[in-house]
Amino acid sequence: MCKANIHIKLKSGVHDPQGKVILNTLHTLGFDNVKSVRTSKYFELEIENENNMDLTEQIDKICDEVLANPNIEIYEFNLENHS
Amino acid sequence: MCKANIHIKLKSGVHDPQGKVILNTLHTLGFDNVKSVRTSKYFELEIENENNMDLTEQIDKICDEVLANPNIEIYEFNLENHS
Repeated sequence: MCKANIHIKLKSGVHDPQGKVILNTLHTLGFDNVKSVRTSKYFELEIENENNMDLTEQIDKICDEVLANPNIEIYEFNLENHS
Repeated sequence: MCKANIHIKLKSGVHDPQGKVILNTLHTLGFDNVKSVRTSKYFELEIENENNMDLTEQIDKICDEVLANPNIEIYEFNLENHS
């Protein structure tokens, strides 16, 4: 069994409305020294890998087709072997 | 300036409906070897720290009061100094 840790972020320059709302909330609560907030998504996938294949290509496909929006997001991942 | 990288996950045992939907989607697309999907949130905060204070306590407060739901979520973070 493999574990894929996938981190999907907005490309720099893409607006992050959720981050802006959180920033405003933090300022309202007095956390004035916080200057910016960027939000992102994180996924942990458990993947069966009986033949010890290289899963990189599969995870690229999963990110491109399902998890990320390639127009505005970038992703990075690492794989852990739990054999 | 400091950067705080904050990762907020559901406690183990807490249901993850979004993860379940993604898992079903992946199976529909033929990625049958994916056995589980857990989703989580990630935040990057830029924090001004003129007096080189220890920001740990402040970030704990921010997580407890704003970013995380302590009933069902746990958080971890690290701090990078960008001075």
